Amino acid sequence: MFDYKLLAALAAVVEQAGFERAAQVLGLSQSAVSQRIKLLEARVGQPVLVRVTPPVPTDVGRRLLNHVQQVRLLERDLQGQVPALDEGGLPERLRIALNADSLATWWAQAVGDFCANHGVLLDLVVEDQDVGLKRMRAGEVAACVCAAERPVAGARSLALGAMRYRALASPAFIARHFPRGVEAQQLARVPAIVFGPDDLLQHRYLTGLGVPGGFAHHLCPSSEGFVRLACAGFGWGLVPELQVEQELASGALVEIIPERPLDVPLYWHHWRSGGELLATLTGHLQRAARVWLVAPDG
Amino acid sequence: MFDYKLLAALAAVVEQAGFERAAQVLGLSQSAVSQRIKLLEARVGQPVLVRVTPPVPTDVGRRLLNHVQQVRLLERDLQGQVPALDEGGLPERLRIALNADSLATWWAQAVGDFCANHGVLLDLVVEDQDVGLKRMRAGEVAACVCAAERPVAGARSLALGAMRYRALASPAFIARHFPRGVEAQQLARVPAIVFGPDDLLQHRYLTGLGVPGGFAHHLCPSSEGFVRLACAGFGWGLVPELQVEQELASGALVEIIPERPLDVPLYWHHWRSGGELLATLTGHLQRAARVWLVAPDG
Repeated sequence: MFDYKLLAALAAVVEQAGFERAAQVLGLSQSAVSQRIKLLEARVGQPVLVRVTPPVPTDVGRRLLNHVQQVRLLERDLQGQVPALDEGGLPERLRIALNADSLATWWAQAVGDFCANHGVLLDLVVEDQDVGLKRMRAGEVAACVCAAERPVAGARSLALGAMRYRALASPAFIARHFPRGVEAQQLARVPAIVFGPDDLLQHRYLTGLGVPGGFAHHLCPSSEGFVRLACAGFGWGLVPELQVEQELASGALVEIIPERPLDVPLYWHHWRSGGELLATLTGHLQRAARVWLVAPDG
Repeated sequence: MFDYKLLAALAAVVEQAGFERAAQVLGLSQSAVSQRIKLLEARVGQPVLVRVTPPVPTDVGRRLLNHVQQVRLLERDLQGQVPALDEGGLPERLRIALNADSLATWWAQAVGDFCANHGVLLDLVVEDQDVGLKRMRAGEVAACVCAAERPVAGARSLALGAMRYRALASPAFIARHFPRGVEAQQLARVPAIVFGPDDLLQHRYLTGLGVPGGFAHHLCPSSEGFVRLACAGFGWGLVPELQVEQELASGALVEIIPERPLDVPLYWHHWRSGGELLATLTGHLQRAARVWLVAPDG
Protein backbone atom coordinates (compact mmCIF):
# COMPACT_ATOMS: atom_id res chain seq x y z
CA MET A 1 0.00 0.00 0.00
CA PHE A 2 0.96 3.63 -0.32
CA ASP A 3 2.72 5.37 2.53
CA TYR A 4 -0.08 7.59 3.78
CA LYS A 5 2.20 9.58 6.08
CA LEU A 6 3.80 10.98 2.94
CA LEU A 7 0.46 11.61 1.23
CA ALA A 8 -0.93 13.28 4.34
CA ALA A 9 2.06 15.63 4.32
CA LEU A 10 1.34 16.56 0.70
CA ALA A 11 -2.35 17.16 1.49
CA ALA A 12 -1.50 19.29 4.51
CA VAL A 13 0.95 21.49 2.59
CA VAL A 14 -1.64 22.18 -0.15
CA GLU A 15 -4.63 22.59 2.19
CA GLN A 16 -2.74 24.77 4.65
CA ALA A 17 -1.11 26.71 1.81
CA GLY A 18 2.41 26.32 3.18
CA PHE A 19 4.97 24.12 4.88
CA GLU A 20 4.94 26.03 8.14
CA ARG A 21 1.21 25.70 8.77
CA ALA A 22 1.23 22.12 7.48
CA ALA A 23 3.86 21.33 10.10
CA GLN A 24 1.70 22.90 12.83
CA VAL A 25 -1.35 20.92 11.78
CA LEU A 26 0.58 17.67 11.56
CA GLY A 27 2.45 18.30 14.81
CA LEU A 28 5.79 17.93 13.02
CA SER A 29 8.78 20.16 12.40
CA GLN A 30 8.86 22.01 9.10
CA SER A 31 11.93 20.04 8.02
CA ALA A 32 10.13 16.75 8.76
CA VAL A 33 7.30 17.82 6.43
CA SER A 34 9.86 18.81 3.82
CA GLN A 35 11.57 15.42 4.17
CA ARG A 36 8.28 13.59 3.67
CA ILE A 37 7.51 15.54 0.50
CA LYS A 38 11.02 14.82 -0.81
CA LEU A 39 10.66 11.13 0.00
CA LEU A 40 7.28 11.05 -1.78
CA GLU A 41 8.89 12.70 -4.82
CA ALA A 42 11.72 10.19 -4.77
CA ARG A 43 9.18 7.33 -4.80
CA VAL A 44 6.98 8.90 -7.47
CA GLY A 45 10.05 9.79 -9.50
CA GLN A 46 8.96 13.38 -10.15
CA PRO A 47 8.00 16.57 -8.28
CA VAL A 48 4.59 16.61 -6.57
CA LEU A 49 4.72 20.30 -5.62
CA VAL A 50 5.87 23.50 -7.27
CA ARG A 51 7.65 25.45 -4.52
CA VAL A 52 5.94 28.83 -4.86
CA THR A 53 3.89 30.71 -2.26
CA PRO A 54 1.45 29.08 -1.73
CA PRO A 55 2.79 25.71 -2.97
CA VAL A 56 0.93 24.32 -5.97
CA PRO A 57 0.53 20.60 -6.73
CA THR A 58 1.95 19.32 -10.02
CA ASP A 59 -0.22 17.12 -12.25
CA VAL A 60 0.89 13.99 -10.48
CA GLY A 61 0.53 15.79 -7.14
CA ARG A 62 -3.07 16.55 -8.04
CA ARG A 63 -3.78 12.93 -8.82
CA LEU A 64 -2.37 11.92 -5.44
CA LEU A 65 -4.48 14.54 -3.64
CA ASN A 66 -7.57 13.34 -5.44
CA HIS A 67 -6.84 9.86 -4.15
CA VAL A 68 -6.22 11.11 -0.57
CA GLN A 69 -9.57 12.91 -0.60
CA GLN A 70 -11.43 9.75 -1.53
CA VAL A 71 -9.57 7.60 0.97
CA ARG A 72 -10.41 10.09 3.73
CA LEU A 73 -14.11 9.90 2.94
CA LEU A 74 -14.01 6.11 3.07
CA GLU A 75 -12.12 6.25 6.37
CA ARG A 76 -14.87 8.39 7.84
CA ASP A 77 -17.45 5.70 7.24
CA LEU A 78 -15.26 3.03 8.75
CA GLN A 79 -14.59 5.16 11.82
CA GLY A 80 -18.33 5.35 12.34
CA GLN A 81 -18.40 1.53 12.54
CA VAL A 82 -15.04 1.01 14.25
CA PRO A 83 -14.61 4.03 16.50
CA ALA A 84 -11.33 2.79 17.97
CA LEU A 85 -9.66 3.43 14.62
CA ASP A 86 -10.17 7.14 15.08
CA GLU A 87 -6.71 8.32 16.14
CA GLY A 88 -7.21 11.91 17.15
CA GLY A 89 -10.91 12.07 17.98
CA LEU A 90 -11.13 15.06 15.65
CA PRO A 91 -14.61 16.20 14.57
CA GLU A 92 -15.64 15.41 11.00
CA ARG A 93 -14.52 17.98 8.46
CA LEU A 94 -15.92 18.34 4.97
CA ARG A 95 -14.00 20.45 2.47
CA ILE A 96 -16.41 21.87 -0.10
CA ALA A 97 -15.89 24.31 -2.97
CA LEU A 98 -18.78 26.59 -3.88
CA ASN A 99 -19.44 29.79 -5.74
CA ALA A 100 -19.32 33.01 -3.72
CA ASP A 101 -22.93 33.89 -4.50
CA SER A 102 -24.26 30.61 -3.09
CA LEU A 103 -22.23 31.19 0.07
CA ALA A 104 -23.56 34.75 0.28
CA THR A 105 -27.19 33.61 -0.05
CA TRP A 106 -28.81 30.16 0.41
CA TRP A 107 -25.97 27.84 1.48
CA ALA A 108 -25.90 28.46 5.24
CA GLN A 109 -29.65 28.12 5.67
CA ALA A 110 -29.74 24.98 3.52
CA VAL A 111 -27.06 23.05 5.41
CA GLY A 112 -27.07 24.63 8.90
CA ASP A 113 -29.24 21.96 10.54
CA PHE A 114 -27.37 19.17 8.76
CA CYS A 115 -24.01 20.34 10.10
CA ALA A 116 -25.29 20.89 13.65
CA ASN A 117 -27.05 17.49 13.77
CA HIS A 118 -24.09 15.55 12.35
CA GLY A 119 -21.40 17.53 14.20
CA VAL A 120 -19.70 18.39 10.92
CA LEU A 121 -17.22 21.25 10.50
CA LEU A 122 -16.99 22.79 7.03
CA ASP A 123 -13.87 23.94 5.20
CA LEU A 124 -15.40 26.12 2.53
CA VAL A 125 -13.43 27.10 -0.55
CA VAL A 126 -14.80 29.89 -2.73
CA GLU A 127 -14.46 29.38 -6.47
CA ASP A 128 -16.22 31.06 -9.33
CA GLN A 129 -19.19 28.97 -10.46
CA ASP A 130 -17.60 28.31 -13.83
CA VAL A 131 -14.29 27.02 -12.46
CA GLY A 132 -15.09 25.38 -9.10
CA LEU A 133 -14.90 21.94 -10.63
CA LYS A 134 -11.14 22.18 -10.95
CA ARG A 135 -10.93 21.82 -7.16
CA MET A 136 -12.71 18.46 -7.47
CA ARG A 137 -10.41 17.36 -10.24
CA ALA A 138 -7.45 18.46 -8.12
CA GLY A 139 -8.74 16.27 -5.30
CA GLU A 140 -8.74 19.22 -2.92
CA VAL A 141 -12.41 19.01 -1.98
CA ALA A 142 -15.01 16.35 -1.21
CA ALA A 143 -17.77 18.10 -3.12
CA CYS A 144 -18.49 21.24 -5.06
CA VAL A 145 -21.36 23.55 -6.07
CA CYS A 146 -20.77 24.95 -9.54
CA ALA A 147 -22.39 25.78 -12.87
CA ALA A 148 -20.82 22.93 -14.83
CA GLU A 149 -22.96 19.83 -15.22
CA ARG A 150 -20.41 17.26 -16.37
CA PRO A 151 -18.84 15.39 -13.44
CA VAL A 152 -15.12 14.68 -13.20
CA ALA A 153 -13.99 11.05 -13.33
CA GLY A 154 -15.11 9.18 -10.22
CA ALA A 155 -17.75 11.75 -9.29
CA ARG A 156 -21.50 12.32 -9.83
CA SER A 157 -23.38 15.55 -10.44
CA LEU A 158 -26.89 16.50 -9.40
CA ALA A 159 -28.96 19.49 -10.60
CA LEU A 160 -29.86 21.65 -7.58
CA GLY A 161 -31.80 24.35 -9.42
CA ALA A 162 -30.84 27.76 -10.73
CA MET A 163 -29.78 31.03 -9.11
CA ARG A 164 -31.81 33.89 -10.57
CA TYR A 165 -29.74 37.00 -11.30
CA ARG A 166 -30.99 40.50 -12.09
CA ALA A 167 -28.99 43.26 -13.79
CA LEU A 168 -29.11 46.02 -11.20
CA ALA A 169 -27.85 49.55 -10.61
CA SER A 170 -28.59 52.40 -8.23
CA PRO A 171 -31.18 54.98 -9.27
CA ALA A 172 -28.43 57.66 -9.09
CA PHE A 173 -26.24 55.69 -11.53
CA ILE A 174 -29.15 55.31 -13.97
CA ALA A 175 -30.09 58.99 -13.67
CA ARG A 176 -26.50 60.07 -14.34
CA HIS A 177 -25.86 57.85 -17.37
CA PHE A 178 -29.34 57.34 -18.78
CA PRO A 179 -31.41 60.45 -18.07
CA ARG A 180 -33.78 59.45 -20.87
CA GLY A 181 -34.06 55.77 -19.94
CA VAL A 182 -31.67 52.86 -20.38
CA GLU A 183 -30.77 52.07 -23.98
CA ALA A 184 -29.33 48.57 -24.34
CA GLN A 185 -26.85 49.66 -27.01
CA GLN A 186 -25.33 52.24 -24.64
CA LEU A 187 -24.83 49.81 -21.76
CA ALA A 188 -21.35 48.79 -22.91
CA ARG A 189 -20.23 52.44 -22.63
CA VAL A 190 -20.98 52.86 -18.92
CA PRO A 191 -19.07 51.07 -16.15
CA ALA A 192 -20.16 47.58 -15.21
CA ILE A 193 -19.07 45.62 -12.14
CA VAL A 194 -17.52 42.20 -12.74
CA PHE A 195 -16.71 39.70 -9.98
CA GLY A 196 -13.44 38.54 -11.54
CA PRO A 197 -11.87 37.43 -14.81
CA ASP A 198 -13.96 34.23 -14.76
CA ASP A 199 -17.28 36.00 -14.26
CA LEU A 200 -18.95 36.12 -17.67
CA LEU A 201 -22.48 36.99 -16.50
CA GLN A 202 -22.28 40.62 -17.59
CA HIS A 203 -20.92 39.51 -20.98
CA ARG A 204 -23.78 37.02 -21.35
CA TYR A 205 -26.34 39.63 -20.42
CA LEU A 206 -25.01 42.12 -22.98
CA THR A 207 -24.75 39.42 -25.65
CA GLY A 208 -28.39 38.54 -24.90
CA LEU A 209 -29.26 42.17 -25.62
CA GLY A 210 -27.38 42.00 -28.93
CA VAL A 211 -24.41 43.99 -27.58
CA PRO A 212 -21.32 41.79 -28.04
CA GLY A 213 -17.70 42.76 -27.30
CA GLY A 214 -15.90 44.40 -24.41
CA PHE A 215 -17.03 47.01 -21.93
CA ALA A 216 -15.60 49.18 -19.16
CA HIS A 217 -15.79 47.53 -15.76
CA HIS A 218 -14.66 47.51 -12.17
CA LEU A 219 -13.36 44.20 -10.82
CA CYS A 220 -14.71 43.28 -7.38
CA PRO A 221 -14.12 39.71 -6.17
CA SER A 222 -16.56 39.85 -3.23
CA SER A 223 -20.33 39.18 -3.31
CA GLU A 224 -21.06 41.66 -0.56
CA GLY A 225 -18.60 44.21 -1.99
CA PHE A 226 -20.31 43.84 -5.38
CA VAL A 227 -23.66 44.86 -3.89
CA ARG A 228 -22.03 47.73 -2.00
CA LEU A 229 -20.38 49.03 -5.17
CA ALA A 230 -23.69 48.78 -7.05
CA CYS A 231 -25.54 50.67 -4.27
CA ALA A 232 -22.82 53.36 -4.24
CA GLY A 233 -23.30 53.93 -7.97
CA PHE A 234 -20.02 52.48 -9.28
CA GLY A 235 -21.73 50.57 -12.08
CA TRP A 236 -24.35 48.01 -13.07
CA GLY A 237 -23.98 44.28 -12.62
CA LEU A 238 -25.75 40.95 -12.21
CA VAL A 239 -26.66 40.16 -8.61
CA PRO A 240 -28.55 37.15 -7.20
CA GLU A 241 -32.14 38.14 -6.48
CA LEU A 242 -31.87 36.29 -3.14
CA GLN A 243 -29.08 38.60 -2.01
CA VAL A 244 -30.80 41.94 -2.54
CA GLU A 245 -34.42 41.44 -1.50
CA GLN A 246 -34.12 44.43 0.85
CA GLU A 247 -32.34 46.66 -1.67
CA LEU A 248 -34.98 45.89 -4.32
CA ALA A 249 -37.82 46.51 -1.87
CA SER A 250 -36.35 49.83 -0.68
CA GLY A 251 -35.44 50.96 -4.19
CA ALA A 252 -31.71 51.21 -3.37
CA LEU A 253 -31.17 49.04 -6.45
CA VAL A 254 -33.40 48.74 -9.52
CA GLU A 255 -33.40 46.45 -12.52
CA ILE A 256 -31.82 48.33 -15.42
CA ILE A 257 -34.14 46.71 -17.98
CA PRO A 258 -37.32 45.35 -16.36
CA GLU A 259 -37.93 41.60 -16.27
CA ARG A 260 -34.73 40.37 -17.89
CA PRO A 261 -33.48 37.80 -15.35
CA LEU A 262 -30.55 35.50 -16.05
CA ASP A 263 -30.80 32.01 -14.53
CA VAL A 264 -27.58 30.16 -13.73
CA PRO A 265 -28.07 26.42 -13.11
CA LEU A 266 -26.11 25.00 -10.19
CA TYR A 267 -24.90 21.42 -9.80
CA TRP A 268 -23.73 19.49 -6.76
CA HIS A 269 -20.69 17.37 -7.54
CA HIS A 270 -19.66 14.64 -5.12
CA TRP A 271 -17.36 11.62 -5.18
CA ARG A 272 -19.13 8.42 -6.16
CA SER A 273 -17.37 6.51 -3.37
CA GLY A 274 -17.60 9.46 -1.02
CA GLY A 275 -19.02 7.61 1.95
CA GLU A 276 -22.22 7.87 3.96
CA LEU A 277 -21.84 11.37 5.36
CA LEU A 278 -21.49 12.82 1.87
CA ALA A 279 -24.41 10.70 0.59
CA THR A 280 -26.62 11.95 3.43
CA LEU A 281 -25.61 15.55 2.73
CA THR A 282 -26.38 15.02 -0.95
CA GLY A 283 -29.90 13.82 -0.17
CA HIS A 284 -30.41 16.70 2.25
CA LEU A 285 -29.21 19.31 -0.27
CA GLN A 286 -31.41 17.95 -3.03
CA ARG A 287 -34.44 18.72 -0.87
CA ALA A 288 -33.20 21.90 0.80
CA ALA A 289 -31.92 23.73 -2.27
CA ARG A 290 -35.40 23.73 -3.82
CA VAL A 291 -36.56 26.32 -1.32
CA TRP A 292 -34.11 28.92 -2.60
CA LEU A 293 -33.30 27.98 -6.16
CA VAL A 294 -35.47 28.15 -9.26
CA ALA A 295 -36.61 24.66 -10.36
CA PRO A 296 -34.10 23.07 -12.81
CA ASP A 297 -36.60 23.09 -15.67
CA GLY A 298 -38.63 26.11 -14.61
CA MET B 1 15.77 51.99 -21.30
CA PHE B 2 13.91 48.77 -20.58
CA ASP B 3 11.77 47.22 -23.28
CA TYR B 4 8.32 47.94 -21.88
CA LYS B 5 6.56 45.69 -24.39
CA LEU B 6 8.21 42.78 -22.59
CA LEU B 7 7.40 44.13 -19.14
CA ALA B 8 3.78 44.79 -20.15
CA ALA B 9 3.50 41.15 -21.26
CA LEU B 10 4.74 40.00 -17.85
CA ALA B 11 2.30 42.31 -16.06
CA ALA B 12 -0.62 41.12 -18.22
CA VAL B 13 0.13 37.43 -17.60
CA VAL B 14 0.21 37.95 -13.83
CA GLU B 15 -2.75 40.35 -13.65
CA GLN B 16 -4.93 38.27 -15.99
CA ALA B 17 -3.83 35.04 -14.29
CA GLY B 18 -2.86 33.31 -17.53
CA PHE B 19 -1.31 33.57 -20.98
CA GLU B 20 -4.60 33.20 -22.84
CA ARG B 21 -6.34 36.12 -21.19
CA ALA B 22 -3.15 38.18 -21.26
CA ALA B 23 -3.06 37.69 -25.03
CA GLN B 24 -6.68 38.84 -25.30
CA VAL B 25 -6.05 41.96 -23.25
CA LEU B 26 -2.89 42.82 -25.20
CA GLY B 27 -4.48 42.02 -28.56
CA LEU B 28 -1.69 39.52 -29.32
CA SER B 29 -1.55 35.80 -30.01
CA GLN B 30 -0.76 33.57 -27.07
CA SER B 31 2.52 32.53 -28.67
CA ALA B 32 3.52 36.18 -29.09
CA VAL B 33 2.99 36.72 -25.35
CA SER B 34 5.01 33.58 -24.66
CA GLN B 35 7.80 34.83 -26.91
CA ARG B 36 7.93 38.17 -25.09
CA ILE B 37 8.20 36.47 -21.72
CA LYS B 38 10.99 34.22 -23.03
CA LEU B 39 12.83 37.21 -24.48
CA LEU B 40 12.49 39.04 -21.17
CA GLU B 41 13.89 35.99 -19.38
CA ALA B 42 16.78 35.80 -21.84
CA ARG B 43 17.63 39.46 -21.11
CA VAL B 44 17.26 39.13 -17.35
CA GLY B 45 19.18 35.88 -17.40
CA GLN B 46 16.70 33.98 -15.24
CA PRO B 47 13.01 32.98 -15.13
CA VAL B 48 10.51 35.75 -14.35
CA LEU B 49 7.50 33.42 -14.08
CA VAL B 50 6.82 29.99 -12.59
CA ARG B 51 4.60 28.22 -15.15
CA VAL B 52 1.82 26.99 -12.92
CA THR B 53 -1.90 27.82 -13.09
CA PRO B 54 -2.18 30.73 -12.51
CA PRO B 55 1.41 31.78 -13.34
CA VAL B 56 3.37 33.14 -10.39
CA PRO B 57 6.19 35.71 -10.66
CA THR B 58 9.62 34.71 -9.41
CA ASP B 59 11.53 37.04 -7.10
CA VAL B 60 13.05 38.93 -9.98
CA GLY B 61 9.65 38.87 -11.75
CA ARG B 62 8.15 40.54 -8.70
CA ARG B 63 10.76 43.26 -8.73
CA LEU B 64 10.01 43.95 -12.39
CA LEU B 65 6.25 44.08 -11.72
CA ASN B 66 6.80 46.45 -8.86
CA HIS B 67 8.68 48.71 -11.26
CA VAL B 68 5.96 48.45 -13.96
CA GLN B 69 3.32 49.46 -11.41
CA GLN B 70 5.20 52.62 -10.49
CA VAL B 71 5.94 53.53 -14.10
CA ARG B 72 2.25 53.18 -14.94
CA LEU B 73 1.26 55.56 -12.18
CA LEU B 74 3.77 58.12 -13.41
CA GLU B 75 2.51 57.69 -16.98
CA ARG B 76 -1.00 58.48 -15.82
CA ASP B 77 0.09 61.89 -14.59
CA LEU B 78 1.90 62.66 -17.78
CA GLN B 79 -1.09 61.63 -19.87
CA GLY B 80 -3.14 64.16 -17.95
CA GLN B 81 -0.75 66.87 -19.15
CA VAL B 82 0.04 65.43 -22.60
CA PRO B 83 -3.15 63.65 -23.64
CA ALA B 84 -1.78 62.71 -27.08
CA LEU B 85 0.55 60.23 -25.39
CA ASP B 86 -2.43 58.12 -24.36
CA GLU B 87 -2.30 55.28 -26.86
CA GLY B 88 -5.53 53.39 -26.30
CA GLY B 89 -7.77 56.04 -24.75
CA LEU B 90 -8.50 53.50 -22.02
CA PRO B 91 -10.13 54.79 -18.84
CA GLU B 92 -7.90 55.01 -15.78
CA ARG B 93 -7.65 51.81 -13.79
CA LEU B 94 -6.41 51.52 -10.23
CA ARG B 95 -5.51 48.09 -8.91
CA ILE B 96 -5.99 48.02 -5.15
CA ALA B 97 -5.71 45.20 -2.61
CA LEU B 98 -7.94 45.38 0.43
CA ASN B 99 -9.28 43.14 3.15
CA ALA B 100 -12.63 41.45 2.49
CA ASP B 101 -14.29 43.10 5.49
CA SER B 102 -13.47 46.62 4.28
CA LEU B 103 -14.90 45.76 0.87
CA ALA B 104 -18.01 44.31 2.53
CA THR B 105 -18.57 47.46 4.61
CA TRP B 106 -17.19 51.01 4.28
CA TRP B 107 -15.04 50.96 1.11
CA ALA B 108 -17.69 51.56 -1.59
CA GLN B 109 -19.30 54.48 0.24
CA ALA B 110 -15.92 56.03 1.02
CA VAL B 111 -14.59 56.05 -2.55
CA GLY B 112 -17.75 56.00 -4.73
CA ASP B 113 -17.82 59.74 -5.41
CA PHE B 114 -14.09 59.85 -6.01
CA CYS B 115 -14.26 57.15 -8.68
CA ALA B 116 -17.29 58.65 -10.41
CA ASN B 117 -15.81 62.16 -10.43
CA HIS B 118 -12.39 61.05 -11.69
CA GLY B 119 -13.69 58.43 -14.12
CA VAL B 120 -11.60 55.74 -12.42
CA LEU B 121 -12.25 52.01 -12.77
CA LEU B 122 -11.13 49.83 -9.87
CA ASP B 123 -9.50 46.40 -10.03
CA LEU B 124 -10.02 45.22 -6.49
CA VAL B 125 -8.02 42.34 -5.09
CA VAL B 126 -9.19 40.78 -1.85
CA GLU B 127 -6.46 39.84 0.60
CA ASP B 128 -6.63 39.07 4.25
CA GLN B 129 -5.80 42.15 6.29
CA ASP B 130 -2.66 40.57 7.67
CA VAL B 131 -1.19 39.59 4.30
CA GLY B 132 -2.44 42.20 1.79
CA LEU B 133 0.90 43.94 1.83
CA LYS B 134 2.53 41.14 -0.12
CA ARG B 135 0.60 42.34 -3.18
CA MET B 136 2.32 45.72 -2.84
CA ARG B 137 5.71 44.11 -2.45
CA ALA B 138 4.96 41.98 -5.52
CA GLY B 139 4.22 45.14 -7.48
CA GLU B 140 0.78 43.83 -8.40
CA VAL B 141 -1.22 46.71 -6.96
CA ALA B 142 -0.99 50.49 -6.73
CA ALA B 143 -2.20 50.64 -3.15
CA CYS B 144 -3.48 48.45 -0.37
CA VAL B 145 -5.65 48.56 2.75
CA CYS B 146 -4.29 46.22 5.39
CA ALA B 147 -3.55 45.79 9.08
CA ALA B 148 0.23 46.09 8.80
CA GLU B 149 1.68 49.53 9.51
CA ARG B 150 5.20 49.22 8.10
CA PRO B 151 5.37 50.25 4.43
CA VAL B 152 7.31 48.27 1.83
CA ALA B 153 10.34 49.93 0.20
CA GLY B 154 9.24 52.85 -1.98
CA ALA B 155 5.82 53.16 -0.37
CA ARG B 156 4.18 55.15 2.43
CA SER B 157 1.55 54.08 4.95
CA LEU B 158 -1.22 56.12 6.55
CA ALA B 159 -3.40 55.17 9.54
CA LEU B 160 -7.06 55.19 8.45
CA GLY B 161 -8.62 54.16 11.75
CA ALA B 162 -9.75 50.83 13.12
CA MET B 163 -12.51 48.38 12.22
CA ARG B 164 -14.43 47.39 15.34
CA TYR B 165 -15.25 43.69 15.54
CA ARG B 166 -17.67 41.97 17.88
CA ALA B 167 -17.69 38.27 18.76
CA LEU B 168 -21.20 37.22 17.70
CA ALA B 169 -23.42 34.16 17.50
CA SER B 170 -27.09 33.43 16.98
CA PRO B 171 -29.33 33.15 20.06
CA ALA B 172 -30.09 29.53 19.06
CA PHE B 173 -26.37 28.67 19.00
CA ILE B 174 -25.88 30.20 22.45
CA ALA B 175 -28.97 28.46 23.85
CA ARG B 176 -27.79 25.08 22.51
CA HIS B 177 -24.20 25.28 23.75
CA PHE B 178 -24.47 27.60 26.75
CA PRO B 179 -27.89 27.13 28.34
CA ARG B 180 -26.53 28.59 31.58
CA GLY B 181 -24.70 31.52 29.97
CA VAL B 182 -21.43 31.75 28.06
CA GLU B 183 -18.37 30.62 29.97
CA ALA B 184 -15.16 31.90 28.39
CA GLN B 185 -13.27 28.70 29.24
CA GLN B 186 -15.81 26.62 27.28
CA LEU B 187 -15.65 28.74 24.11
CA ALA B 188 -12.81 26.71 22.61
CA ARG B 189 -14.98 23.57 22.80
CA VAL B 190 -17.81 24.86 20.57
CA PRO B 191 -17.44 25.56 16.84
CA ALA B 192 -16.08 28.93 15.79
CA ILE B 193 -16.12 30.39 12.28
CA VAL B 194 -12.77 31.46 10.82
CA PHE B 195 -12.38 33.38 7.55
CA GLY B 196 -9.27 31.49 6.43
CA PRO B 197 -5.90 30.25 7.62
CA ASP B 198 -4.64 33.86 7.90
CA ASP B 199 -7.55 35.03 10.04
CA LEU B 200 -6.29 35.12 13.62
CA LEU B 201 -9.08 37.27 15.10
CA GLN B 202 -10.80 34.37 16.83
CA HIS B 203 -7.46 33.22 18.25
CA ARG B 204 -6.74 36.74 19.52
CA TYR B 205 -10.16 37.00 21.10
CA LEU B 206 -9.75 33.69 22.93
CA THR B 207 -6.21 34.56 24.00
CA GLY B 208 -7.60 37.85 25.35
CA LEU B 209 -9.99 35.79 27.47
CA GLY B 210 -7.12 33.68 28.76
CA VAL B 211 -8.02 30.69 26.55
CA PRO B 212 -4.95 29.94 24.43
CA GLY B 213 -4.53 27.04 21.99
CA GLY B 214 -6.61 25.52 19.21
CA PHE B 215 -10.37 25.25 18.80
CA ALA B 216 -12.88 23.60 16.49
CA HIS B 217 -13.87 25.82 13.58
CA HIS B 218 -15.54 26.11 10.21
CA LEU B 219 -13.53 27.84 7.47
CA CYS B 220 -15.53 30.35 5.43
CA PRO B 221 -13.56 32.73 3.16
CA SER B 222 -16.46 35.12 2.46
CA SER B 223 -17.55 38.11 4.57
CA GLU B 224 -21.20 37.72 3.65
CA GLY B 225 -21.04 33.92 3.98
CA PHE B 226 -19.47 34.36 7.44
CA VAL B 227 -22.47 36.38 8.63
CA ARG B 228 -24.88 33.88 7.05
CA LEU B 229 -23.16 30.97 8.82
CA ALA B 230 -23.27 32.86 12.13
CA CYS B 231 -26.99 33.64 11.69
CA ALA B 232 -27.70 29.99 10.81
CA GLY B 233 -26.07 28.86 14.07
CA PHE B 234 -22.91 27.22 12.67
CA GLY B 235 -20.64 28.88 15.20
CA TRP B 236 -19.42 32.09 16.82
CA GLY B 237 -16.99 34.49 15.18
CA LEU B 238 -15.72 38.05 14.98
CA VAL B 239 -17.71 40.24 12.60
CA PRO B 240 -17.28 43.96 11.82
CA GLU B 241 -19.92 45.95 13.71
CA LEU B 242 -20.53 47.96 10.52
CA GLN B 243 -21.61 44.83 8.66
CA VAL B 244 -24.29 43.60 11.05
CA GLU B 245 -26.11 46.68 12.29
CA GLN B 246 -29.41 45.16 11.22
CA GLU B 247 -28.69 41.72 12.68
CA LEU B 248 -27.67 43.28 16.00
CA ALA B 249 -30.77 45.50 16.05
CA SER B 250 -33.12 42.60 15.24
CA GLY B 251 -31.41 40.22 17.65
CA ALA B 252 -30.50 37.73 14.87
CA LEU B 253 -26.94 37.95 16.23
CA VAL B 254 -25.85 38.79 19.76
CA GLU B 255 -22.50 39.48 21.37
CA ILE B 256 -21.38 36.31 23.13
CA ILE B 257 -19.73 38.25 25.97
CA PRO B 258 -21.12 41.79 26.26
CA GLU B 259 -18.88 44.76 25.47
CA ARG B 260 -15.72 42.96 24.43
CA PRO B 261 -14.95 44.54 21.05
CA LEU B 262 -11.72 43.90 19.15
CA ASP B 263 -10.36 46.85 17.17
CA VAL B 264 -8.21 46.14 14.12
CA PRO B 265 -6.24 49.16 12.85
CA LEU B 266 -6.19 49.61 9.09
CA TYR B 267 -3.49 51.32 7.06
CA TRP B 268 -3.49 52.70 3.54
CA HIS B 269 -0.27 51.84 1.69
CA HIS B 270 0.57 53.69 -1.52
CA TRP B 271 3.62 54.17 -3.71
CA ARG B 272 5.66 57.27 -2.80
CA SER B 273 6.02 58.18 -6.48
CA GLY B 274 2.50 57.00 -7.27
CA GLY B 275 1.38 60.07 -9.17
CA GLU B 276 -1.38 62.62 -8.68
CA LEU B 277 -4.41 60.38 -8.97
CA LEU B 278 -3.16 58.17 -6.16
CA ALA B 279 -2.18 61.21 -4.07
CA THR B 280 -5.69 62.67 -4.50
CA LEU B 281 -7.30 59.37 -3.57
CA THR B 282 -5.04 59.20 -0.51
CA GLY B 283 -6.19 62.63 0.66
CA HIS B 284 -9.81 61.70 -0.01
CA LEU B 285 -9.57 58.41 1.91
CA GLN B 286 -7.92 60.04 4.90
CA ARG B 287 -11.01 62.21 5.32
CA ALA B 288 -13.66 59.69 4.24
CA ALA B 289 -12.52 56.70 6.29
CA ARG B 290 -13.07 58.64 9.54
CA VAL B 291 -16.81 58.39 9.11
CA TRP B 292 -16.78 54.58 9.34
CA LEU B 293 -13.67 53.67 11.26
CA VAL B 294 -12.84 54.13 14.92
CA ALA B 295 -10.29 56.93 15.43
CA PRO B 296 -6.68 55.61 15.32
CA ASP B 297 -6.03 56.47 18.95
CA GLY B 298 -9.57 56.10 20.26
